[in-house]
Amino acid sequence: MSSLRPLLVVAGLGTGQGTGAATARLFAKSGYSVALIARGQDAVQGLAKKINDEGGNAAGFPIASYAPSDIQSAFSAIKTHFPAQTHTLKAAVWNAGAGVWKPFLEITEQDVQNSLDTNVVAAFAFARQVILGLKENELDNNGKKGTLIFTGATASVRGNVTTSAFSASKHALRALSQSLAKEFGKEKIHVSHVIIDGGIRTDRSIDRIQAGNGLEPDSIAQSYLYLANQDHSALTWELDLRPAVEKW
Amino acid sequence: MSSLRPLLVVAGLGTGQGTGAATARLFAKSGYSVALIARGQDAVQGLAKKINDEGGNAAGFPIASYAPSDIQSAFSAIKTHFPAQTHTLKAAVWNAGAGVWKPFLEITEQDVQNSLDTNVVAAFAFARQVILGLKENELDNNGKKGTLIFTGATASVRGNVTTSAFSASKHALRALSQSLAKEFGKEKIHVSHVIIDGGIRTDRSIDRIQAGNGLEPDSIAQSYLYLANQDHSALTWELDLRPAVEKW
Amino acid sequence: MSSLRPLLVVAGLGTGQGTGAATARLFAKSGYSVALIARGQDAVQGLAKKINDEGGNAAGFPIASYAPSDIQSAFSAIKTHFPAQTHTLKAAVWNAGAGVWKPFLEITEQDVQNSLDTNVVAAFAFARQVILGLKENELDNNGKKGTLIFTGATASVRGNVTTSAFSASKHALRALSQSLAKEFGKEKIHVSHVIIDGGIRTDRSIDRIQAGNGLEPDSIAQSYLYLANQDHSALTWELDLRPAVEKW
Amino acid sequence: MSSLRPLLVVAGLGTGQGTGAATARLFAKSGYSVALIARGQDAVQGLAKKINDEGGNAAGFPIASYAPSDIQSAFSAIKTHFPAQTHTLKAAVWNAGAGVWKPFLEITEQDVQNSLDTNVVAAFAFARQVILGLKENELDNNGKKGTLIFTGATASVRGNVTTSAFSASKHALRALSQSLAKEFGKEKIHVSHVIIDGGIRTDRSIDRIQAGNGLEPDSIAQSYLYLANQDHSALTWELDLRPAVEKW
Repeated sequence: MSSLRPLLVVAGLGTGQGTGAATARLFAKSGYSVALIARGQDAVQGLAKKINDEGGNAAGFPIASYAPSDIQSAFSAIKTHFPAQTHTLKAAVWNAGAGVWKPFLEITEQDVQNSLDTNVVAAFAFARQVILGLKENELDNNGKKGTLIFTGATASVRGNVTTSAFSASKHALRALSQSLAKEFGKEKIHVSHVIIDGGIRTDRSIDRIQAGNGLEPDSIAQSYLYLANQDHSALTWELDLRPAVEKW
Repeated sequence: MSSLRPLLVVAGLGTGQGTGAATARLFAKSGYSVALIARGQDAVQGLAKKINDEGGNAAGFPIASYAPSDIQSAFSAIKTHFPAQTHTLKAAVWNAGAGVWKPFLEITEQDVQNSLDTNVVAAFAFARQVILGLKENELDNNGKKGTLIFTGATASVRGNVTTSAFSASKHALRALSQSLAKEFGKEKIHVSHVIIDGGIRTDRSIDRIQAGNGLEPDSIAQSYLYLANQDHSALTWELDLRPAVEKW
Repeated sequence: MSSLRPLLVVAGLGTGQGTGAATARLFAKSGYSVALIARGQDAVQGLAKKINDEGGNAAGFPIASYAPSDIQSAFSAIKTHFPAQTHTLKAAVWNAGAGVWKPFLEITEQDVQNSLDTNVVAAFAFARQVILGLKENELDNNGKKGTLIFTGATASVRGNVTTSAFSASKHALRALSQSLAKEFGKEKIHVSHVIIDGGIRTDRSIDRIQAGNGLEPDSIAQSYLYLANQDHSALTWELDLRPAVEKW
Repeated sequence: MSSLRPLLVVAGLGTGQGTGAATARLFAKSGYSVALIARGQDAVQGLAKKINDEGGNAAGFPIASYAPSDIQSAFSAIKTHFPAQTHTLKAAVWNAGAGVWKPFLEITEQDVQNSLDTNVVAAFAFARQVILGLKENELDNNGKKGTLIFTGATASVRGNVTTSAFSASKHALRALSQSLAKEFGKEKIHVSHVIIDGGIRTDRSIDRIQAGNGLEPDSIAQSYLYLANQDHSALTWELDLRPAVEKW
């Protein structure tokens, strides 16, 4: 086993208050160095600074867009910043993507294309970089080369009124995660999909969630860390997460 | 009830030997006029001629690509050819799309984009035209305004090794169909998704299917006609179809 | 191919106004002789008489309970009444079973046992007799030996508050149907499962369904006849049925 | 919050080498007292002794059968042994049940009945005792009253050739778990279902599993402890577990 420091790459931070940020902070506290990919220089650098102030080791890699070339560039920069002499990519979380909720006839061609670009094309590009990185690894104490986690949603398993474009994209992402889990399981690369079935408590969404009822980002992060720590003999592809009080 | 002739629009004909062609011919024999949308002037016109020779009423609307603008143009041409004075759009079948089967790391960004464009973006554009058309209808003898059927595949419900791009697209299509079924059911527009779980017997695929084991296109077409004939009190969103001998 | 008359066996008639009765009448009009199995002498004989009055050929086989021995006895009586010299068992519909809807803590051990006995143990016994019968057949014009259809419900795929016992039983029935479809498909025996996702319009349930919103039993019966007529190249294991206006 | 010691009840130990035993030992090491319910005096007492020798606090409650009355008696004895003055029931694991794998026509009525009795009727009785106990609790630091985990299998979600009776029972158990999760979530009782998709490494099954390929019971136990530790804002109903190398 190597003495290199494990590296987590997180893509997608929203306003820096949600799942991506909580995951970055929790993994940092658990000994991972953290590379942050997101649009928005401020959110990325702000979170990196916060993690470093907390004693962690984080760096931000803001991107102009989730175009595959931008994602590839971010990974190149990550390899320079966290070189193979000191770090090993061990975990990656795809938390990017954006939703559009509109009646079907109000959804434009551009809405569909944007939804697919941001949620699916970008995820393929991200997954490619992660898989290429993880394949280089030796097996760790858990008998794995590393873990790639995709953040899903209720729309990942159910199409609904006003969610046609978003659920199409999230279904696609789930299919990608399952294909990867099957293709790379035999190489001891662990791919997971987490269905977030409810609103998340963040500054941004506080008004959409009944007080006290949303998912805590820190609790979601705990599930991601649990997945990363699973050993090769018993891997979870998919789990769901929802508040106790959620009606489903 | 109107005395106008019902119109079926089929998108996607492959080599003219599979599901799309069989559906067009069966609906034509059942009294529908048929509008054929596909790439490839020859396949489209050849099938239209065959249906007309069999006593049906078909016309081909070849398109250069499945870009939304091309699909929209095809529907405009269809409205001119089968005008509202004589025809009512009553059924539509989305049978287009193409698969790419490759190990994940061999799938290029272009492969992903093509798969999404052809299978998903195009399907949204097709569905938009169909829904806009069906909404204009009065309820028919079945208490419906009409039926929109999407052709799915095993990959619609299972990601697998080498199917990441294809299953992502087909999962997305399934989500679209479910969203539409829920959003437009209350307007008595029937949206269905048919999972074709096995190879189809056509000239093109004959070498991929053990002799006698594939799905007969005519049998798939029967299921589409059955769906179109369901009344509003008992509508199927999804059914699967596979050969008796298929292992699943 | 044989010139023997095809026989349908239906188990479960409720009040004689629902799915079982509608199926029996529709198959009778389509040329099947019909054997009716149900508890309640009156419902069984009343429906048999109605079908015979309509020009069909039906006979009732009332049973005291859905105990396996009673089901076996009914099949013995059916073989005597519709002997192999004149009839071939070609289709069977399991429509029996009863639901219990109670908060979990009000469900008694007896409730659970009754639910499993009536919905599951009885279905295994029924399926056994049907499979034994169908295995004897030659392939028909559809390349099949015959069709066995199970009636499912929303609870077949979703557990919910107050449905623990019922959904447990209906999930079990669905599993049975899938196992049978896989085991006997290669023998060209077709096994299907139909998810009835909504209330059915019958005298009994009319007060539970908003006027005009339930499933028409005749429409459900049409789906069963469609399944029985599918050829071996394209068989449906499962389809769902719900009213256009149902929220799901 | 209370200073009472948390109690885990485990039902089902097999040969004492599998999931149930590993779970009992892991929870014991994490500070839970453990009550063991199983058939077979030797396995139960042997495991209790082992846990106590390791510094834990365990007691065995062997039962003659999984009849509801026996399960109820075991819970009465547990309450006497671990009284409310010192212990609070906080977690329960249903790991009992037995499988029968036979071609459908070899499955007897007794096989079906046994499978349902052991896997379903018994689980209802166990769940009843657990829910009654958990309802008495105050919310803990995780905002929950406690956790009830059901052990599922591949057969919980897929019927297959030779699994008709087993998959019927396991589907039923899954439905029970989902119903309970929905009914008691609002009371902050957490109900989970874990799909074990592969063979488990135990003395008993070692010959059925390719060397090194099965699930480690200790790893399954880790997932159960993780579930028990989830807070009320982000609860998992279902997760799957399989070896990295499993083909699925």
